[in-house]
Amino acid sequence: MQIGKVIGRVTATRKDERLVGTKLLIAQPIRLDGTLTGTPIIAVDTVGAGVGEQVIFVVGSMAARAIANEGAPVDAAIVGIIDSLDSEQ
Amino acid sequence: MQIGKVIGRVTATRKDERLVGTKLLIAQPIRLDGTLTGTPIIAVDTVGAGVGEQVIFVVGSMAARAIANEGAPVDAAIVGIIDSLDSEQ
Amino acid sequence: MQIGKVIGRVTATRKDERLVGTKLLIAQPIRLDGTLTGTPIIAVDTVGAGVGEQVIFVVGSMAARAIANEGAPVDAAIVGIIDSLDSEQ
Amino acid sequence: MQIGKVIGRVTATRKDERLVGTKLLIAQPIRLDGTLTGTPIIAVDTVGAGVGEQVIFVVGSMAARAIANEGAPVDAAIVGIIDSLDSEQ
Amino acid sequence: MQIGKVIGRVTATRKDERLVGTKLLIAQPIRLDGTLTGTPIIAVDTVGAGVGEQVIFVVGSMAARAIANEGAPVDAAIVGIIDSLDSEQ
Repeated sequence: MQIGKVIGRVTATRKDERLVGTKLLIAQPIRLDGTLTGTPIIAVDTVGAGVGEQVIFVVGSMAARAIANEGAPVDAAIVGIIDSLDSEQ
Repeated sequence: MQIGKVIGRVTATRKDERLVGTKLLIAQPIRLDGTLTGTPIIAVDTVGAGVGEQVIFVVGSMAARAIANEGAPVDAAIVGIIDSLDSEQ
Repeated sequence: MQIGKVIGRVTATRKDERLVGTKLLIAQPIRLDGTLTGTPIIAVDTVGAGVGEQVIFVVGSMAARAIANEGAPVDAAIVGIIDSLDSEQ
Repeated sequence: MQIGKVIGRVTATRKDERLVGTKLLIAQPIRLDGTLTGTPIIAVDTVGAGVGEQVIFVVGSMAARAIANEGAPVDAAIVGIIDSLDSEQ
Repeated sequence: MQIGKVIGRVTATRKDERLVGTKLLIAQPIRLDGTLTGTPIIAVDTVGAGVGEQVIFVVGSMAARAIANEGAPVDAAIVGIIDSLDSEQ
């Protein structure tokens, strides 16, 4: 899984019907010190994350497991809100 | 999922039969400010996207779920047309 | 899927038996203007592509779907030969 | 699989329930000489790895296989603790 | 699939039991001219490859298909030993 920060939200009226009702957040991958790295992605929120929160997100087919509608074409999902990152770095 | 912009279309007469009838668009990954990043990919359109539109695309095995013929060898699909990107950045 | 150019072929006598009889081509990812980008990969040809042709290739588990022997350990396959790339760029 | 070094641990109270009880470690990809490369990821520990140890981690859907609860939305798992890396480099 | 060179071997006593008995080799991705590119990975050998040999390796969930124990948490496997790379480059 990756460490990210929720930086925003996407709205899309015309979308796959199995994405209707999902909360599409913009997750920016971050380093351990919180600085930004890589490209923001769109992830389905499954734990009530809000803008500014540090989160755990999963990518690829495993992301679809986190979604209520497991048949949805989803490749990224937020599956945790980080309390703390304890690291040597 | 990723944020992209539809920048064109691909035609290929000789292709896997399960791709026949699909609309193969060229999706260019973009940053939140709309500037281009990374390499364009070919994605099957499933929501009626047009050139110039900002879209949501899914990659990997989950993309095949978005296609009418779920057995097709597809690893990228457009699953939403973006209305708005609201972000801190 | 990705845009590539067939630039060669691989021969490997000692290989997984389910790859026997497959045509292993070297596909070089290219930009829309045809210039090279990224690292060449080995892809199973499924549409009769030849050296110099621009092709569509799929990667990951979906590639295995394009192969006659769907049980083969394959993560890249050529699934189309490009007639034209119509793009704004 | 990749070579990494465990550099820390993540705590997240609000998370997917199938992640409850898993040990979420921060794994930093490393080169053969031990220097850091790429971005740290969050991996579920399945072999009792500790901070500072060099480990083998698997990513993608295969990571979920290593977890006791195979239904968990997991895309990275530590599946081995390295004794030695014997290489020409 | 990718082109690589076997540059070493990994030993790990404490590992997922389904990896016991597998030969874990270090595969370094290479360009067509044999120069090194990218980061070495750990791949399960399935064709008797040795250090110094140029090989074909598959990554992702398809790698697990190449392993005798298909249930193993594996995301990279060597599935061929290259005889020749015939390319325009």
